[in-house]
Amino acid sequence: MDDRIREHARILVDWSARIDAGDDVVLAVEDGAHDLAVAVAEQLGDRGANLLSTYQSDELTRAYLGAHDGSFTENPEYELALYDRADSVLFLKGSRNTTETADVDSDQRQAYSTARQEIREARLDTDWVSTQHPTRAMAQQAGMAYADYQDFVYDATLRDWEALAEEQARLKEILDDGKEVRIVADSTDITLFIDGRIAVNSAASVAYDSHNLPSGEVFTAPYDTAGVVTFDVPMTIQGRRIKNVELTFKDGVVVDWSAEQGEAVIDEIIGTDGGSRQLGELGIGMNRGVDRVTDNILFDEKMGGTVHLALGRAYDACLPEGESGNDSAVHEDLITTMGEGSRLEVDGEVIQQDGVFRWEDGFEG
Amino acid sequence: MDDRIREHARILVDWSARIDAGDDVVLAVEDGAHDLAVAVAEQLGDRGANLLSTYQSDELTRAYLGAHDGSFTENPEYELALYDRADSVLFLKGSRNTTETADVDSDQRQAYSTARQEIREARLDTDWVSTQHPTRAMAQQAGMAYADYQDFVYDATLRDWEALAEEQARLKEILDDGKEVRIVADSTDITLFIDGRIAVNSAASVAYDSHNLPSGEVFTAPYDTAGVVTFDVPMTIQGRRIKNVELTFKDGVVVDWSAEQGEAVIDEIIGTDGGSRQLGELGIGMNRGVDRVTDNILFDEKMGGTVHLALGRAYDACLPEGESGNDSAVHEDLITTMGEGSRLEVDGEVIQQDGVFRWEDGFEG
Repeated sequence: MDDRIREHARILVDWSARIDAGDDVVLAVEDGAHDLAVAVAEQLGDRGANLLSTYQSDELTRAYLGAHDGSFTENPEYELALYDRADSVLFLKGSRNTTETADVDSDQRQAYSTARQEIREARLDTDWVSTQHPTRAMAQQAGMAYADYQDFVYDATLRDWEALAEEQARLKEILDDGKEVRIVADSTDITLFIDGRIAVNSAASVAYDSHNLPSGEVFTAPYDTAGVVTFDVPMTIQGRRIKNVELTFKDGVVVDWSAEQGEAVIDEIIGTDGGSRQLGELGIGMNRGVDRVTDNILFDEKMGGTVHLALGRAYDACLPEGESGNDSAVHEDLITTMGEGSRLEVDGEVIQQDGVFRWEDGFEG
Repeated sequence: MDDRIREHARILVDWSARIDAGDDVVLAVEDGAHDLAVAVAEQLGDRGANLLSTYQSDELTRAYLGAHDGSFTENPEYELALYDRADSVLFLKGSRNTTETADVDSDQRQAYSTARQEIREARLDTDWVSTQHPTRAMAQQAGMAYADYQDFVYDATLRDWEALAEEQARLKEILDDGKEVRIVADSTDITLFIDGRIAVNSAASVAYDSHNLPSGEVFTAPYDTAGVVTFDVPMTIQGRRIKNVELTFKDGVVVDWSAEQGEAVIDEIIGTDGGSRQLGELGIGMNRGVDRVTDNILFDEKMGGTVHLALGRAYDACLPEGESGNDSAVHEDLITTMGEGSRLEVDGEVIQQDGVFRWEDGFEG
């Protein structure tokens, strides 16, 4: 076994999921994640946790949904009983074909998802963690050779998470105390108002209320926004490419928008509902292991030297008791590179210059 | 998809497991059985059954057991809750290496199994069916090319089960009414006493209390045995080869035994306990699709033109109300070919001659 797979499993079990002896663990194994599953099984055995593995495969899902008449049983009790009692669910993602469900009817998928809402909630009520085993299909989506993609995933995942959590704690403190965040970059000068909002130190551990490995960001929920932002990082949303989206905000609402590519997707997102014209999240990427765009939002948005803003729903964790944030059916992250000449200010103080934080070597603020 | 895989799935779901709309089905997918799992998912979707897939892999089991300290939680509640509520469990076997757990400590395996007895019983309380997807590893164990092995498995599995169930019903009636079965073959002349015992029509369907696909045998439980039998079909028991085992019975008990190969294994089996010196089963193979030995007892013992006798435990299904059968910790099937010159008699009447039943073409009794 590649030592990096074993190390990945160790970080997942210890740092991320905090598994203890006797914990009832569901290991949700995607069909391309077998090797990581073996390594995680070894770690779970060593910790004396209990193990039940489920099989996740888009090929099975496509076959099942394609043949079903659409009248799905609501929250089948045997499955609900399992997740109601589980302590942790570890999702090992590892797709063998990222377009496997391309021809699945979206109404059918939605009906299935709706019928299973309680099961989904029961899963999210556990100490769940989602992680990514590098597969050839994911390498292909990233436009990379397989060996290079493996290096990329492990650089992003096998980090000193404790040190990163400490670094992120600094930024969290600044954001918690701050009132206004100003982002200046190419074709971007935007101010977000965050007074009273709570920043989340997303350090890839349930102990930090962070459920993705890798993670590496600090995010909060602005309540107001003004200015212009250009998202230069290209993405794929619902199978369609978007590039250089520019949004103009006034009084917290998008008043003008354009895109070099995929403007129709942005039209749809913004037109979803009242909340989809406003921002739900300001996230600041802190993971220096993510050093390139791989067309996978879970990695892209964590990239050190980027910020992302999400149109739509705000996360409850960012809201003080009794306060409600922006509500919407969507939450769509868009990413801006903080390159040469960029800066991030909190209440007029420069926190990051040219993509370098003020506590990092090379900061010239 | 190979049409035979889809047909296999259809037989499993309809004939064997009798799945209905709304049934809560656990699909237990072994790591080499993916293609069959896709086909079964399609059938389950079409029937409107509910689907939860678990992942079975000897590699995970080996890693987990190898790392665990051996103090296993008894019947973890989340898993027990799942199987207590499931209607059916479909085991899709498909090993990728039949010797994967060769180095797993047998005490550790036993401790794990003992701690999970209630879970196992809950699974066996469902309408469970176990079937076999042909893999390269299974072909290798059979000493066959992969394509030939696929042909073999589908010949054995994709049968007219309704017709076979009817044929087997004839034999069941004869055995139910019979008192003595005499088997004459090469180096074999043995009489088994079955008066009052109930024969099982094992037709690969839960409707016949038969849980393996393929099946194709009629079996009963003798209460007394006298004579000599030679098992010419070679087998692997606990990783050791056995060949041409000869047993001599007097008053129901083995009084003498020898083997051309693997005599030590037979010594161990016979020495297990009081019941392991007596027979628990007489089975008569009826599946004409199984036309060769593949070193897999689930297929070998079903071969048309063979009989098998098991040392050890009798099945309850063969016993009239209130009667107890032979009891033992073991149940070890051994197989004899009914070739040229062989015959099977029930109460002096020839039922099978030269391996041909009296209702088949070519019978010359």
